Amino acid sequence: MTRETAIDSRQEILRTAARLFQQQGYDATSMNDVAAALKLSKGGLYHHFQSKDEILFNLMDHALDITQARVIDAVRGVADPGERLRMLIRRHIEVVLSVRDREITVMLHENHPLPPTMRRRINARKKEYVHFMENLIAEVQRSRQSKGVVSPRAAAFALLGMINWIYQWYKPEGTLREEQLAREYTEIFFAGALQ
Amino acid sequence: MTRETAIDSRQEILRTAARLFQQQGYDATSMNDVAAALKLSKGGLYHHFQSKDEILFNLMDHALDITQARVIDAVRGVADPGERLRMLIRRHIEVVLSVRDREITVMLHENHPLPPTMRRRINARKKEYVHFMENLIAEVQRSRQSKGVVSPRAAAFALLGMINWIYQWYKPEGTLREEQLAREYTEIFFAGALQ
Repeated sequence: MTRETAIDSRQEILRTAARLFQQQGYDATSMNDVAAALKLSKGGLYHHFQSKDEILFNLMDHALDITQARVIDAVRGVADPGERLRMLIRRHIEVVLSVRDREITVMLHENHPLPPTMRRRINARKKEYVHFMENLIAEVQRSRQSKGVVSPRAAAFALLGMINWIYQWYKPEGTLREEQLAREYTEIFFAGALQ
Repeated sequence: MTRETAIDSRQEILRTAARLFQQQGYDATSMNDVAAALKLSKGGLYHHFQSKDEILFNLMDHALDITQARVIDAVRGVADPGERLRMLIRRHIEVVLSVRDREITVMLHENHPLPPTMRRRINARKKEYVHFMENLIAEVQRSRQSKGVVSPRAAAFALLGMINWIYQWYKPEGTLREEQLAREYTEIFFAGALQ
């Protein structure tokens, strides 16, 4: 097998597993279910992933790679901190609403307990993202000579909550569309957290 | 068995089940596990609840009763709409952070698919709460002659997200305490969503 095929298979396994976990619940989905959905032998599946925990860990890690690439790396080049934050909000909402990646990124909120080393790595990466937001918010507050009514930490968690909650209620056919949502959430956050 | 004992047993079963679901995951917890943790016979447990779905449904329904009593009913008597909204934010955060009720209220976010009739009832009650917030936000915007930069619907979902996300990151021993959190979230929301 070439290296490229190997990578493709892993991605395909992760995507299929994510879909099954969401349809049936993580615990109710067995390694057999995953193998069957992929028309793989159980041995073929275990060649890539030793356990369901390892699949979940890799899904979460991949969701964080997506966030890193589409949000953090995408905004780093923007010089003005206010514009950088505006772009972060828009990009993060895009990731949450992306049809292609939703199955994977939603897995970040799966609360099945992972083995300690895996859990520590995921939590460390989640914390890195919170710190990135917190530092950016502090930078924007300084650049606007904000009165500091809201701490960057509470502001970062408020913003994460607003955005990460979207998958709980958003319907693409609903009255509130992505464009309006991004604009109004940006309004709320800029007027509310940067005073 | 007196009626009161019957009610107490149901409550105790729900509390214990909620704790197990959170420790082990909903799908990984069996009716046997629940009965064993309560030192009940399986028959004793089935006397109260016919299935795990019925337990989950009752947990969610109970979480919504708690929200109704501690948030909606508590704020209805407040005449000034701004004060009513301020109290709603504080009360909702209290419910989310309540040590006693957290095990139950967190179950609202369990995404295990319930049978259609149960799911419809829970979704209808969740929607009622969103509408209550949305109407209150619209009332506050009118009373403040808001420019209407943010729609009451987006504002309601933003607020729900900020608050319902708290259980994902909050640590009672962390730097951000309940009092500061309630104050800063209120600041963000009032300055951001009511412009």
